[in-house]
Amino acid sequence: MNRDTVFAAELPWPAYQSRVQGGDVPVLIPLGSMEQHGHHMPMHVDVLLPTEFARRAAAETGALVAPPFTYGYKSHQKSGGGNFFPGTTSLDGASLVSALKDVVKEFARHGVRHLCIVNGHFENSWFITEAIDLALRELSWGGIDNVKVIVLSYWDFVDQASIERLYPDGFLGWDIEHGGVLETSLMLRLHPDLVSLQDAVEHAPATFPPYDVYPPKPEWTPASGTLSSPKDATAEKGDILLEVCTRGIVEALKTEFDPGGALAAAQ
Amino acid sequence: MNRDTVFAAELPWPAYQSRVQGGDVPVLIPLGSMEQHGHHMPMHVDVLLPTEFARRAAAETGALVAPPFTYGYKSHQKSGGGNFFPGTTSLDGASLVSALKDVVKEFARHGVRHLCIVNGHFENSWFITEAIDLALRELSWGGIDNVKVIVLSYWDFVDQASIERLYPDGFLGWDIEHGGVLETSLMLRLHPDLVSLQDAVEHAPATFPPYDVYPPKPEWTPASGTLSSPKDATAEKGDILLEVCTRGIVEALKTEFDPGGALAAAQ
Amino acid sequence: MNRDTVFAAELPWPAYQSRVQGGDVPVLIPLGSMEQHGHHMPMHVDVLLPTEFARRAAAETGALVAPPFTYGYKSHQKSGGGNFFPGTTSLDGASLVSALKDVVKEFARHGVRHLCIVNGHFENSWFITEAIDLALRELSWGGIDNVKVIVLSYWDFVDQASIERLYPDGFLGWDIEHGGVLETSLMLRLHPDLVSLQDAVEHAPATFPPYDVYPPKPEWTPASGTLSSPKDATAEKGDILLEVCTRGIVEALKTEFDPGGALAAAQ
Amino acid sequence: MNRDTVFAAELPWPAYQSRVQGGDVPVLIPLGSMEQHGHHMPMHVDVLLPTEFARRAAAETGALVAPPFTYGYKSHQKSGGGNFFPGTTSLDGASLVSALKDVVKEFARHGVRHLCIVNGHFENSWFITEAIDLALRELSWGGIDNVKVIVLSYWDFVDQASIERLYPDGFLGWDIEHGGVLETSLMLRLHPDLVSLQDAVEHAPATFPPYDVYPPKPEWTPASGTLSSPKDATAEKGDILLEVCTRGIVEALKTEFDPGGALAAAQ
Amino acid sequence: MNRDTVFAAELPWPAYQSRVQGGDVPVLIPLGSMEQHGHHMPMHVDVLLPTEFARRAAAETGALVAPPFTYGYKSHQKSGGGNFFPGTTSLDGASLVSALKDVVKEFARHGVRHLCIVNGHFENSWFITEAIDLALRELSWGGIDNVKVIVLSYWDFVDQASIERLYPDGFLGWDIEHGGVLETSLMLRLHPDLVSLQDAVEHAPATFPPYDVYPPKPEWTPASGTLSSPKDATAEKGDILLEVCTRGIVEALKTEFDPGGALAAAQ
Amino acid sequence: MNRDTVFAAELPWPAYQSRVQGGDVPVLIPLGSMEQHGHHMPMHVDVLLPTEFARRAAAETGALVAPPFTYGYKSHQKSGGGNFFPGTTSLDGASLVSALKDVVKEFARHGVRHLCIVNGHFENSWFITEAIDLALRELSWGGIDNVKVIVLSYWDFVDQASIERLYPDGFLGWDIEHGGVLETSLMLRLHPDLVSLQDAVEHAPATFPPYDVYPPKPEWTPASGTLSSPKDATAEKGDILLEVCTRGIVEALKTEFDPGGALAAAQ
Repeated sequence: MNRDTVFAAELPWPAYQSRVQGGDVPVLIPLGSMEQHGHHMPMHVDVLLPTEFARRAAAETGALVAPPFTYGYKSHQKSGGGNFFPGTTSLDGASLVSALKDVVKEFARHGVRHLCIVNGHFENSWFITEAIDLALRELSWGGIDNVKVIVLSYWDFVDQASIERLYPDGFLGWDIEHGGVLETSLMLRLHPDLVSLQDAVEHAPATFPPYDVYPPKPEWTPASGTLSSPKDATAEKGDILLEVCTRGIVEALKTEFDPGGALAAAQ
Repeated sequence: MNRDTVFAAELPWPAYQSRVQGGDVPVLIPLGSMEQHGHHMPMHVDVLLPTEFARRAAAETGALVAPPFTYGYKSHQKSGGGNFFPGTTSLDGASLVSALKDVVKEFARHGVRHLCIVNGHFENSWFITEAIDLALRELSWGGIDNVKVIVLSYWDFVDQASIERLYPDGFLGWDIEHGGVLETSLMLRLHPDLVSLQDAVEHAPATFPPYDVYPPKPEWTPASGTLSSPKDATAEKGDILLEVCTRGIVEALKTEFDPGGALAAAQ
Repeated sequence: MNRDTVFAAELPWPAYQSRVQGGDVPVLIPLGSMEQHGHHMPMHVDVLLPTEFARRAAAETGALVAPPFTYGYKSHQKSGGGNFFPGTTSLDGASLVSALKDVVKEFARHGVRHLCIVNGHFENSWFITEAIDLALRELSWGGIDNVKVIVLSYWDFVDQASIERLYPDGFLGWDIEHGGVLETSLMLRLHPDLVSLQDAVEHAPATFPPYDVYPPKPEWTPASGTLSSPKDATAEKGDILLEVCTRGIVEALKTEFDPGGALAAAQ
Repeated sequence: MNRDTVFAAELPWPAYQSRVQGGDVPVLIPLGSMEQHGHHMPMHVDVLLPTEFARRAAAETGALVAPPFTYGYKSHQKSGGGNFFPGTTSLDGASLVSALKDVVKEFARHGVRHLCIVNGHFENSWFITEAIDLALRELSWGGIDNVKVIVLSYWDFVDQASIERLYPDGFLGWDIEHGGVLETSLMLRLHPDLVSLQDAVEHAPATFPPYDVYPPKPEWTPASGTLSSPKDATAEKGDILLEVCTRGIVEALKTEFDPGGALAAAQ
Repeated sequence: MNRDTVFAAELPWPAYQSRVQGGDVPVLIPLGSMEQHGHHMPMHVDVLLPTEFARRAAAETGALVAPPFTYGYKSHQKSGGGNFFPGTTSLDGASLVSALKDVVKEFARHGVRHLCIVNGHFENSWFITEAIDLALRELSWGGIDNVKVIVLSYWDFVDQASIERLYPDGFLGWDIEHGGVLETSLMLRLHPDLVSLQDAVEHAPATFPPYDVYPPKPEWTPASGTLSSPKDATAEKGDILLEVCTRGIVEALKTEFDPGGALAAAQ
Repeated sequence: MNRDTVFAAELPWPAYQSRVQGGDVPVLIPLGSMEQHGHHMPMHVDVLLPTEFARRAAAETGALVAPPFTYGYKSHQKSGGGNFFPGTTSLDGASLVSALKDVVKEFARHGVRHLCIVNGHFENSWFITEAIDLALRELSWGGIDNVKVIVLSYWDFVDQASIERLYPDGFLGWDIEHGGVLETSLMLRLHPDLVSLQDAVEHAPATFPPYDVYPPKPEWTPASGTLSSPKDATAEKGDILLEVCTRGIVEALKTEFDPGGALAAAQ
């Protein structure tokens, strides 16, 4: 039994308790989805990737990683292809808000005061915001006013220099990266056995009008389900992404949770 | 009594009924907020602007404009300064979702089959998505499967050419336009009596780290509440914006609701 | 920019903040509906009228008026004709309760301690009661125990002497005043351009059995949608109503929020 | 075992099934509360009275009576003294709406198509309306469109002639009848052992301003909890009330559920 | 008027208040259902029995009995035959949780600090757990941290010795006691007029696979609705059950609410 | 990329679609928790075990396994030690119900008609029941009436013969197996690296009174968090359990989903 694991749920409770008491050790909660990611990748990409970023950031900072949320909010046409695809299995907004609110409150009950939501599924974003707001409100009603929560999506840490290395032919925005170079490169590095690049469908980047239509119009989404071609993905690009995003997440944790450097020193 | 008004609630019901029966006439629903917009603008900017865009688009297409939502989702620090400002008066996500869901279903009950949400407050976006999804689901349970809804935020129709005219020194993204050139120019054109540009606070554009923190850190938001300086706003820029956004909204309505051109011909 | 406006949302936040800090300045929240009001009046009567009463009462007492609720609870057959009319666009009870609860809590967060709900739509009544009860409960959980809320419907201030002047042939109760002399007279005084009295349908006052039936029976409601004839409405009666109701509301505000007279003296 | 009982829950299911199949037999659901009714009456008056009216009406029409709702919506100051009294034990609006909605849908599942809510607690009224509306909506989603529901409060059947006999010195409205002549007379006739008239507190009828205040002001309610004096209550007045209200309820059932007279003939 | 009654709702509020102030007097809340119980018993068995146990326990301990919950959670196939039977009239889980939560909080508002849920319907169990958890959470938000709640189902107090007397031929578990010897014997002792043993259907005990199926399969439930034969029920067995369960409940109340014996001494 | 995987989320959507279309292939959803399991085991035992049973059963029947629910309902004192332990991280009932309801409906949208909930956490049981009931209701509203769901907890398939082999000194019930021989033996076989049997605390089986108390009394739970000693756990007993439970689950799937044997024949 590895009591040095970063995964909170791999610990027996006394070991967990000794880690979190005092409140300084952050708990990172990966949030994903079950969502189609084209012909060449599995449907739990959005769980695997934030869990790995959380694992790496936790290893560097002494944090713990909570069990991931394996289902997320409904896939949006412009960032995930649309929720009409078979396989995509999503929650209503209220369900996600309630479950995440509960979990945040439970970690606070254990004494955790530093939480970080590591999001891997764009559509979760605003419901995370709402869940955190409601959780902090209820914690405050219960007399707990000192919980601090970081919310991040790992891709937001990719800086301009990395973008130029990753997309030498030009970058078209994170929205249409669904199933594209970003996620595929990371999967090629981390889970090559779960990628079948030869099955990827090459197509021009998806373009959308500046508005949404409901019910979504399937003809707006490339038939493959990806929003840009993953053909230029490589494991080496995955390394770039792993490095820059992990570094950014670690810095965020240190900046917000460890102004005086104690967290880093403890490593 | 002006029976040619585009405002649905200014009509007596028989006139309204004769307009909407058949289902072809779109109903546009403005969604706003009560939110601080700096020292130089009032707090109902996000109501006034989408209502005016809806009015103009309706006048050009024969659509009707529903009463606006006068309150919206909580102001986010990176796009609205944060919900901690006095004056900002917001709804929980569930409240907004429920109310908008109800209203959409009611218009469908009247026979309306073409709806357009004209959003003026960025933070409403995902809750609109959820409200529409739930409304269409429940309408479907009730046997109504042919309602089509456009969701748009007016600024998304500003094209690259207009951006270059509006921001000759460079454009930094819609997020930090809160209380900046975009909204102030529109208000200067439409409601100059509600703007006091001399009270605007000049400051560098707000910058944020690539993550959020909750509770929000007030020191991240410029003390004025605006996220970029409105000093370069002019009524002339307001004209550009009115023109390009109205045109875009009208095109969206015609494209989605009127493939054969009947709507346009009726004008 | 008129910083003396009574409309809170017309103020920039610093001006709003300076008005409400200390908690003594009341905030009045008009609650309306989008509801058919017969052949001769528009569907936002229940928004326009309480907003005007709130405006007048605020002007006399130094209070502020919040943005109105533009949608309300479902029209009841005996007081609004029934929710089956086209045009009537209503909220479920839970939606109204949630939204009003949120708004009340937000004003309390700003420091407001005196709130007044100015209702213009009878059917909102009990859901207002519930919203206020829940808001005060949650505020209390958050440590705020000194918020006081007045709830009123403007017509409840019409005294017996005024009734005799308004209804010289006898008064049949507020319930069937839907679209009748009360509302039409006020609209004739305040918004004559929105009234078309020649289109009003003359009919005997609606009578109902002492019970309700669901689904409602359309044949119980006069086909016009009004519950009594508006033919005797006049702008002069509107003056009577404006005077007596405004006076009553002002007295309520002074009595409940200003026992020592400071509010009045500040005018 | 009395298979002729009107109380549905006293029947074994096969007997119940044979009664309700076909859908013509109405089911009457009494709705009450646990609410203080002064010093001289117990707190389940609002359960006992509608249950008895339902029993009598069922006996005359062949209907069945469902188990009563023993808790109701919060007591309102102007009609029940206010919810701050010890003993008054109330539900939130949402709880009452949900429970009643469920029960109505269950009876419809059994085949019942004629339902009547027999209300004994004024404050339940609007939440009954909402519950019925939501139940009919969901039943319709499930393909059941022919359920008809009567909603009534027994006192609404007291006609002018009876009022004159009951209140020879003048009648001041049902609102302040809380714990007064109406309820006390009925209890004296039906449950004299539960009334202690000598403990009743004589006081002038409660008067209230034309608005509500929250939190309620206990000094507005007579200290006894009653809103008018019950001293003039008599068992004979109870007889008048039983007669006129039962007759009215029976007529309502026959009118709405039995246009051709079959129900009556079956008795 | 019997001021010594154990039924809280039979008291006027001043008498109730004098009983509960101080917080030591327990309030027992019976929870039942409207559920088929075979051909030989009525559908409110689960209300009658816990109410009687509560009455007896209250009489012995000076406690009070609140009005019963007359509807409960949906009948489960393996413990109640399944919710598909006509007559069974059930609540959604959320409705039961909300209503019970409200009632618990109201008693706490009165000053009650010792509550006991006396359950008569197995399926209510987990929703009781949730209701109590939520009620205590909200009470804690409101500053009340000293409410203690016992939750019990009366049959859990039948000890091994009694089981051997009641089931000389072997006991097969409480689950299949639905409508069997346990409930029928109690009803024969307490309400013989509501039992028609000759109509009971003799059948082998129901057996089920170790899993559930939804929608339930009616063929799994004996056609009578009972899960074991009630033929061996007797009033004498009812006496055994009344004695052992009442004794157990009384002991629970004394143990948990009265460690020093004051409650007992007061009798 | 292993397109023969039983894990649905490891498939790209086209492969998933080809597996589920037609509706015959069952989808198994493991439901777990994050809950303390004593000093010797980690906190995701209730996720690992049902996922493994689902995997084995799917491998034998051609079914698919959905991503597990990683959080579950609150730990109950008598079956999980109580929710007050640090580390135990639980959902409110409503959150679990909503999320599971959503997921079931999504699989049905894909065309799946055979679902099986494989539960690993006792406290989830009734909320699973409610979630399935609500999901089937809403699916029915949407016109889908042919979804069939099996709900099972793996330990319910341990037969008497196995119990005698597993517990030669006597079996005390599944309730107190929390962290005991059952779960520990399975973990020793499946994840020996996650078990530290030398850290297990030996103690007498927990005993509880026949009622619950809230807030729970920590002194009722053995300090270790286990409810019975795991000292007699062995990997060999894990083999017995794996065999008997997997066999039972497979039989359940075949019996309910494959009456004619097609599923089996396809293997």
